[in-house]
Order: sequence, then C-alpha cells, then structure tokens
Amino acid sequence: MDLKKLENLAKLVRYYILISTTAAGSGHPTSSLSATDLMVALMFGGFFKADINNPENPNNDRLIFSKGHASPLFYSLYAAAGKVSENELKTLRKFGSKLEGHPTMEFPYTEAGTGSLGQGLSIGVGMALNAKMDKSDYKTYVLMGDSEIAEGSVWEAAEIATHYQLNNLVGIIDVNRLGQRGETLLGHDLKIYQKRFEAFGWKTWVIDGHNLKEIVKTFLEVENDKSDLPKIIIAKTLKGKGISFIEDKDGWHGKALKPEELSKALEELGTVEKLAGEVVSPGIKYQVLSSKPKNKKLNTQYLIPNTYSKGEVVATRKAYGNVLLKLVKENPKVVVLDAEVSNSTMSETVKKEFPERFYEMFIAEQNMVGAALGFSRRGKIPFASTFAAFFSRAFDQIRMSQYAKPNIKFVGSHAGVSIGEDGASQMALEDIAMFRTLLNCVVLYPGDAVSAEKLTSLAASHFGNVYIRTTRAEAPVIYDNGEEFKIGGLKVHKSRITNHESRIVVIGAGITLHEALKAQQELAEANIGFDVVDLYSVKPISDELEKIAKESEAVITVEDHFEEGGIGESVKTALAGIDTPIHSLAVRKMPKSGKPAELLSYEEIDARSIIEKVRELTNE
Amino acid sequence: MDLKKLENLAKLVRYYILISTTAAGSGHPTSSLSATDLMVALMFGGFFKADINNPENPNNDRLIFSKGHASPLFYSLYAAAGKVSENELKTLRKFGSKLEGHPTMEFPYTEAGTGSLGQGLSIGVGMALNAKMDKSDYKTYVLMGDSEIAEGSVWEAAEIATHYQLNNLVGIIDVNRLGQRGETLLGHDLKIYQKRFEAFGWKTWVIDGHNLKEIVKTFLEVENDKSDLPKIIIAKTLKGKGISFIEDKDGWHGKALKPEELSKALEELGTVEKLAGEVVSPGIKYQVLSSKPKNKKLNTQYLIPNTYSKGEVVATRKAYGNVLLKLVKENPKVVVLDAEVSNSTMSETVKKEFPERFYEMFIAEQNMVGAALGFSRRGKIPFASTFAAFFSRAFDQIRMSQYAKPNIKFVGSHAGVSIGEDGASQMALEDIAMFRTLLNCVVLYPGDAVSAEKLTSLAASHFGNVYIRTTRAEAPVIYDNGEEFKIGGLKVHKSRITNHESRIVVIGAGITLHEALKAQQELAEANIGFDVVDLYSVKPISDELEKIAKESEAVITVEDHFEEGGIGESVKTALAGIDTPIHSLAVRKMPKSGKPAELLSYEEIDARSIIEKVRELTNE
Repeated sequence: MDLKKLENLAKLVRYYILISTTAAGSGHPTSSLSATDLMVALMFGGFFKADINNPENPNNDRLIFSKGHASPLFYSLYAAAGKVSENELKTLRKFGSKLEGHPTMEFPYTEAGTGSLGQGLSIGVGMALNAKMDKSDYKTYVLMGDSEIAEGSVWEAAEIATHYQLNNLVGIIDVNRLGQRGETLLGHDLKIYQKRFEAFGWKTWVIDGHNLKEIVKTFLEVENDKSDLPKIIIAKTLKGKGISFIEDKDGWHGKALKPEELSKALEELGTVEKLAGEVVSPGIKYQVLSSKPKNKKLNTQYLIPNTYSKGEVVATRKAYGNVLLKLVKENPKVVVLDAEVSNSTMSETVKKEFPERFYEMFIAEQNMVGAALGFSRRGKIPFASTFAAFFSRAFDQIRMSQYAKPNIKFVGSHAGVSIGEDGASQMALEDIAMFRTLLNCVVLYPGDAVSAEKLTSLAASHFGNVYIRTTRAEAPVIYDNGEEFKIGGLKVHKSRITNHESRIVVIGAGITLHEALKAQQELAEANIGFDVVDLYSVKPISDELEKIAKESEAVITVEDHFEEGGIGESVKTALAGIDTPIHSLAVRKMPKSGKPAELLSYEEIDARSIIEKVRELTNE
Repeated sequence: MDLKKLENLAKLVRYYILISTTAAGSGHPTSSLSATDLMVALMFGGFFKADINNPENPNNDRLIFSKGHASPLFYSLYAAAGKVSENELKTLRKFGSKLEGHPTMEFPYTEAGTGSLGQGLSIGVGMALNAKMDKSDYKTYVLMGDSEIAEGSVWEAAEIATHYQLNNLVGIIDVNRLGQRGETLLGHDLKIYQKRFEAFGWKTWVIDGHNLKEIVKTFLEVENDKSDLPKIIIAKTLKGKGISFIEDKDGWHGKALKPEELSKALEELGTVEKLAGEVVSPGIKYQVLSSKPKNKKLNTQYLIPNTYSKGEVVATRKAYGNVLLKLVKENPKVVVLDAEVSNSTMSETVKKEFPERFYEMFIAEQNMVGAALGFSRRGKIPFASTFAAFFSRAFDQIRMSQYAKPNIKFVGSHAGVSIGEDGASQMALEDIAMFRTLLNCVVLYPGDAVSAEKLTSLAASHFGNVYIRTTRAEAPVIYDNGEEFKIGGLKVHKSRITNHESRIVVIGAGITLHEALKAQQELAEANIGFDVVDLYSVKPISDELEKIAKESEAVITVEDHFEEGGIGESVKTALAGIDTPIHSLAVRKMPKSGKPAELLSYEEIDARSIIEKVRELTNE
C-alpha cells in the first residue's frame, strides 16, 4: 500500500472539494472534508472494486453516500479517478449540471438519490440482500454522517442486517461531531456508537478517520473478516479537516469558502499533485440474472391468470397473493418483502412456496422500502406489502425513491373504512393522496379478483414505481377471466336502462365500485339509469374519461378515502378542461369501529348515498 | 401488598377480555392476556397513581397503550376499576361504542389514539418532558409489544429520553414472542432487548411477566430508583396466557374465541370474583399551568407584531422566528421542538433566549412529532419545525395525531423548488398534499413577513393541528402591519387596470404569490388586467373564493408544489359547484439543482409562465 500516494490523493480530493464549492457559492465542504481520508482509502486503497468505466457492471462493489450533502466529496473522488474534469466540477449545483446539490441519478455513479438522512443503510441492506440472493461477492459500502444515526431508520436497517447476516454490508460513520446547528446528540463519544451497534449485532471498528495507515489497516481487517456479522467502521473525524480556520469549528455547516478564504485554504493545502487515483477492477465474478423470464413463452404481462367465476366472492388481496406466486415462479427477478403481515396482505403464498424469494422485514416499514429500493437498483422487481395505512410510516423513503429511477411495487392491503372493527388507526385514508404525489408513479385500485390479478401482472412488467391498493373484504368477481386491463385504462358498466342517455356517470374503484353497481341495479328497478366507471387506474387516468364526462350532465365520484388528494380530486384534475359538474362522495367524518357496511353508510359512500345523490341530481 | 387480590383481579380482567372479544367476534384477546399480570400489578398494586374520576387531573400518572391492539385489556382494567360496566364491555368494537378496536379518544382514559405500532414511547417522551418542565412528579408509563420494538421510532424515543434524563418515563415491553404471523425478530431472547436498551442508556429490568410477586417487586424498585435514567421493564410473557389451548400458540393473533371455545376457556379460568380494583389517588402535587397567558392584556391572537416596512425583503421563516419568540414570551404553554435545523427554520430565536422552552430533538422527526403530541395532550401548544420535506418522515405519526384531539403546530421551512441549489431531496413538493389529508387540519402558507407573523399567532390560539409552510427565500413585505388575516381567509390584489372586469383571477400563495404579482404588474403595462388572490389559508378555503371565481371567466392556480393534492386541487374541490374553468400551474418535471429563479422558470410556475397562460386565455 502506497500511503504517500493515498495522502496525495486525499490532498487532491480536498482541493477539488474546495474549488468546486467555492465555484458553486454554496454546498457542504466541511462535511466533505471530514470523510475525505476514509473515502480516498476505500476507493484508491484497493478495497472498493469496480469497473469504473461501467457503473452498471453487476460485479461492482456499491458505494452509497447516505450523507448526501457530502456530494462534493463524492464527485471529487470520481474527479480523482479521472471520470469528472476539473471544469465539470466547477458546474457543481448549477442548473443543468450532473453534479447536483445532493447526488442524483444524473451522475452515473450515484446508487440512489440521497439527501434525506438516515436512508442509505436500508438501501444498502437491499443491495446486500441482492448479492446474497445472487450468490455474488460484491460488497456494499454505506457512508453515513453522525447526525443521521439519530434517525430510527438506521436502527431498523441495523437489526435487519443482523437478522440476515449481511456480512457483505459495510457501514462507515464519519463522526465529525458537528451537525447543522451545533454538536450532535453524541458528539465525539464513539464508544456509545460502538456499544449501540454491538448491541444490534454488528462487528465494529473504532478508528481515527484521518490516520490513513489505521484506515487502510481497518479496511484490510474488514475485507478479511470471516464472521457472519455486518460491519461498521466508526471513525473519529473533524469537520473541515485539513483547513485550520474551518476545522472542527461550529458555524461552518453548509457554507462554501469565499474566494479570498479559498486562496488562504489552498495556500494551507500546499502543492497539489494531479494524480490519477486507481480503482481496482472486480473481474468477472458472477453473471447477472438474465432479464428474461425463465420460461420464454411466459412474459409476466401475459401470465396465465388463475380462473375465477363471475359472482364468486374473493378479496382482491387474495387474488394478489395468487398471482404473486405465479409471478415469482415465472420471473426470477421478482422478490417479495413484507412488514410482518403477510397473512393479511396475502404475500404469504410466496413465503410458503418460495421462502428464498420472500424477505420478512418485520414491523419496520422504513427499512422495508429502503431495502426494496436497493433491490430495485440492482435490477430486481421488489413487491413490498403491508397494510396500506402503514406505508405512511415510510413516506420519506417512498418520496426519495422517486429520485432514484425506482422500480418498486408497493402493495397496500386493508385500505379504507371498509376494514371495519379495527378502527381508524388501521384505515388507510390518505394512501392514494400520498402515492399520487410521486412523479410517474402508477396508482392502481382493482375492484375484483380478475382485475387484481391482471393489474398486478401488468405492474410487474411496467418499469417504475407502482402502488396497488387492495381491499380486506371479499367482493364478487365481476369480470370475465379474459377481460383485458391496462395502466391508464378504465371500464364502463352501462346501465341496463338504455334510454337514459348517460346523464349521470358514477366513478368508483375498489370497494366503492361495488356500491356503485348496487346503486345502479337498484335504480334501474326504478327506471333510472346511470353508467358506472371502474377507475381502476387512478394514475394515470384514461383519456377516455374526458369523453365520457363530456357526454354526461354530471359526474359523481365515490371513494373509500379522504377527499383530499383522492379519486375525486384526481378526476377533477383530469376533467379540468370540461365543464361537467363533479360531485364527490368521500370519507369526511372521524372514522369509527363498526361493521364495514355501517361505516360505508356513516361516511356516505355506500349504495344508498349514491342513490340519494343521483336522485338529487335527476330530481327523480 | 395483597398478592392474592392482585391474582384475583388478574383473573377478573382475563374474564373481561375473553367475554368482550367473543361478544365482538373479533379483537386481540391473546395479545391482551399476555400483558394482563403486568398491567393489573401496575394499576391495582398502588404504583399507577391517578384520580380515576377525573382522567384530566394533571397530577395523574399517564398510561399509554402503545400496543393499541391490546385494547380489550385496556378497557377491562377500567372495568375492574368500576369505570366500565360488563354490559358496556360487550359493546366492544360495535358501531357507536366508546370501546373501539384500538383505543380512541372516545374512551376517556385514552391518552392518544394508538394502533400504529412503535409510536407510544415518543408520546411518552413528550408527556415526561412536560412533567419535567412543569416540575410535576407524575410518571408516564408506556406499554409496548415486542413486535413493535422493531420500529425505528422506538429507538428515536429511547435516545432522546436518555438525552433529557427522563427518569420519570417507564417503558414496559410485553415480550410474548409471537407477532401477527409467527415469531418476532428476537423471539424470547430478552437479553438482546436488554442489551439494546442499555446501550441506549436505559435502566433495565428483565422479569417474568406472569409472576405477580416479581412484577410488584420490580415496580417497587422502579418507583424507588433515584437514577437519572429512563426505565424499562422487559417482561417475558406468553401470548394467550392463562388459557391452555391458546397459550403460546401460533395462529391465535387477532382472533376472538368462538362461544364454545369461550365456555371452555371460562371453565379453565374457574370462579371469577367481581372485585373492585383500587387505583391509588395522586393527591394534589402540583398546580397545572394556567391556561391564561401571563399578561392578561395580551391574548396571543392579538400579539403586538413586529413591524415591517412594505417592500423590505424578509423571508417568511425569519418572520416566523420573530413571532415565535414573542409567543413564547407571552404564553407559558407554547413550547418549541426542532429537528436539528433551528438555524434554518429560525426557531433558534427561542433556543437562544428561552432555552428551557426549546427542545432540540435532533434528526429524528418521528419522535419529534410523537413528543409534540405528548406535550399537546398535556395542554401545551407545541410548535414543531423542520424542513417541510422532512415532515414526510413522520407522516404516520402525523396521521395518527389526528385521532388524538391534537393541538400541534407543524412548521415546515424550505418548501418547494425555490430552495434552489440543494436539489430535489430537500424540496417539499408533497407537504401540502400530506397535511391537507388530515381531518380538521389547518394549512397556512403566508406570502410575506406580516402575514407570516399574523398567521403564526393565529395558529397558536386556534385549537387543533395547524401546518404552516414557510419559504427559504426572502420576499418583499406586501401587507401593512395593521392588516388582518384569518384562518379560512384570503386577500385579493386588484389589478391597477380597473376596466378589466376581472376576467381572469390568478391564485397563488407563498413564493408564487410574488410571481403572480410580478406578472400582474408586467401585464398591466400592456393594459391587460387580472386580479391576484393570496390564498394564504389553503385549508380551510375561504367561501369568498367561490364568489370571486363566479365573477371570473377563468381561474389560474400557481404553486411551488406537485399538482397532486396541492393548491390547484384544493381550489378545484372548493369550486366544484361552479363552472369557471380552472388552469393549474404546478411542479411537473423532475426537479433539479439551480438558482431559485431558474427552477421556477423550468417548472413553469414563474411570472413569465403566468403571463403566457393569461395571454393564452385572453388571446392578447
């Protein structure tokens, strides 16, 4: 090991950090400088093994910058490796640059967009699980700040990493003592970090994060460790290390040096040699899984569905479990994660038949979503399920996933007041609003078993985030097994009263579709006709809806969800260009325990409420 | 201590649990039975001290059922205490009953609605901090299940409890080994729980949770402990304890006994004595803070604001910090919590002048929100602030707070793409959607310093959850210091072109209000007039808006937020009854780093985009 070269590379990286942030006029040089020696040793000390010309090479080790604000360091490492020019470094944080304020997918070496702290270790858990699954020996490194260790999500990742014996996962904590506004929770008390990680089952190293010899020795030990334990390096560092007037000083978080300060700093740094840092190649260690399903004839999109009989009562979550099992059988890239409720979400079908493709993530939803993102970034198609209400626990992870070219299938069961007796805490009434906010996220809400299967199958073959909302209660099958569905589609159920000229159209989905159909049938007996739309694709919404609404005098939406951000508002946005009035029935009162029918009635989203609204609008 | 009586009370409580759940036909008897001995000893062993006839007595100890699914135990304890009749117990989970599936505020002894696991300890942290602040010696007990210890939020609560030396906080873990679908992460390995809590700085007791003598001895030790440490009792228990055919058996989660099974169970239980459990009274230990502000003349609603000059540039977050300091001075009930970014949210004004009213909650947003709820439940008015984006980290806690008669003021700074260079991870673009979903939550979005102050002051005097969205960038003051604002209000800024007959109205808020005003001014020069509405109260929306829209030919909304669930959709819902077309400008493209103006332009929510839209609609 040429320590002198590492030292010079560290100096070069510090130079790049300083000049790029001063050019940007903002950014986090001090948080970058503290982790410089650690990262230089990792990258250029022969430990991090990657085909640097092909970041997507599946044999590459992975490096996640959980402390995303240290992006100047991240970019500078690749500058030292010859992949970013000094000129490009000076575009840091500028509009149109690949070098954004926090790492994004614009930069080809970014594993996942970071910047919301405490999420990287979970993404690392997903990548490390993926390596185990693929029997690959790539390692996953996660650089964390000390402030972010306060986030509970870190401890979720820690406990699950231990559970799955992820000895291929290496965390590095840059304990620079200073947070944004002063000292961190634990300051420089490295022993407490160590005690906590040890209690969570990790192998720990406490080191001086600026002593290159010690750092190199530690990475060697980590590399040679034969235990089953995940590993963490807890490094004592100084914020702003290397520049006397900012080193270990409060008040220097997220501040670039002014030009005159930069000159002073560079003077201190001394002569910088423009060395080329070398990253060791991984060699070809394993072949990535083929992207093609095992059975060539079976593309998941055209998976042979289970067969259901019309009128048969089947919960959509049950149908989800049925088709999930088939997807796992047919496509080796499909993996399943669940937050300790697989017997409710019905992902237990996979758990029972293909335990090696099922990951029990226990009641720790944040880590489940982070791990799903990790799997997705390594080419898998993760289905992550829990009660729909509990995805709110991971909203920040879900939000951040949209900035990481994600391909996660979120499946939320037990949505809405129709879950009944368990009461408000278990009723997702904001899940559609939450998932709708995500850029390009598909939101599906099947009403019966046939559509649930078809839509789940479509979700698997669609690249991107998809949310599928399933229902606890059983519902009659209303579609033929041969019926076709599509993302951005809808189904029209015409009234048997044919001369009604579609004056009113009622839009439902999931449980309320059945309430709408009941109302349709009942009013048909009174010779009042209206069409029902099954809006199973809530996002994107079918263009056809506008045509249907144009031909109608009124639209009624009905949903088992709060009004805000739900189906009614989706429809209002989709129909903003036309002037057909839209009336919305939605959950508006404090939900209670009770029978599903009682609650649908109480919230005025049942067949009777639809009938009343239609009668009010038709004056009949 | 009469152990025999406690034993008989435990038997009675088990009887109540069994009969109530069988009457309900659902519920969680086994998860209730495991914690019965622990809770009977706590309540009736003289440890839990409360004026049982007045649950709001501020001297009462507090008991939070974090494992909310053990609600049958919770209700049965109060039945044994004579506060719930056997007949009422049989209304469990029925529509209209106070005894809901998970504890809600309908039941007078509920401290906070629970049922989303892992949240109780944070609420306990808030209540324990409150006791310290008020120099009261009430204790806060939190009953947790073992499955929920996997939630990261528990560890956030644990680390903060240690930081604040909450020796008045007592956690009890009912380690019954079995989760919903099988064994928990740690099973019956109590030593691991102990090791982890000790590493997080807690004093621990590992006990047999069915040995009343040992339990009583432990509560005595807890009571007499003089250390500064928060305390946790880790109790080995059996799910379904006391009934042989369900005890420690998998497959019995969330299942009531069938009537014939109940008979068998009651036979096993033997004769049950209808004893009266006695809860020790706390006596009068301290006087709760007066609800009146110190200075009678100053009601917070009419707080003398700071003065600003029109045209002066002041960030709304700065104005927030200014008024927050006054609120803290004037109203002893106002407390401030911040997630390690007080120098950005500007709550540091309080930190500097009133450190005893400021709680640094570090980067652990879930616990911050839980603790804020705890404060709020004990009568305080907590202002909890962080970057708006990071409230998504606590969405589940925020969601659950709506079921707890909350009074939290959430203040999110750095909202929208206008934050600039830091990039997408730091831009809240879904915060309005998130807070809008909450029942009765007020959503405020001030556009200048004067309105920011007035609205913050109004938020303090309004009972209920309020979200205030502040902006990073500076903006000119546009209102007179004497201007009045109200929850559910708006302001109209008329064009100086008076003959335009209000054909178009542009609705903005926060940063986009200024873009709209710029566009208004620029188009006025071209003799095109339109009115601008400052929709500072996004929820509720002023009734006046409908009148304004009715008199207009088109409405344009413009917001620094994703379209879904944002201001545009709020307006669409508010204006659903009228047929004026609504056009929405919102964030639709993948956000980037860049200068604020570049990003507003890129997302087409700047003055130029408004001008283009107005010109398109007016064909001028």
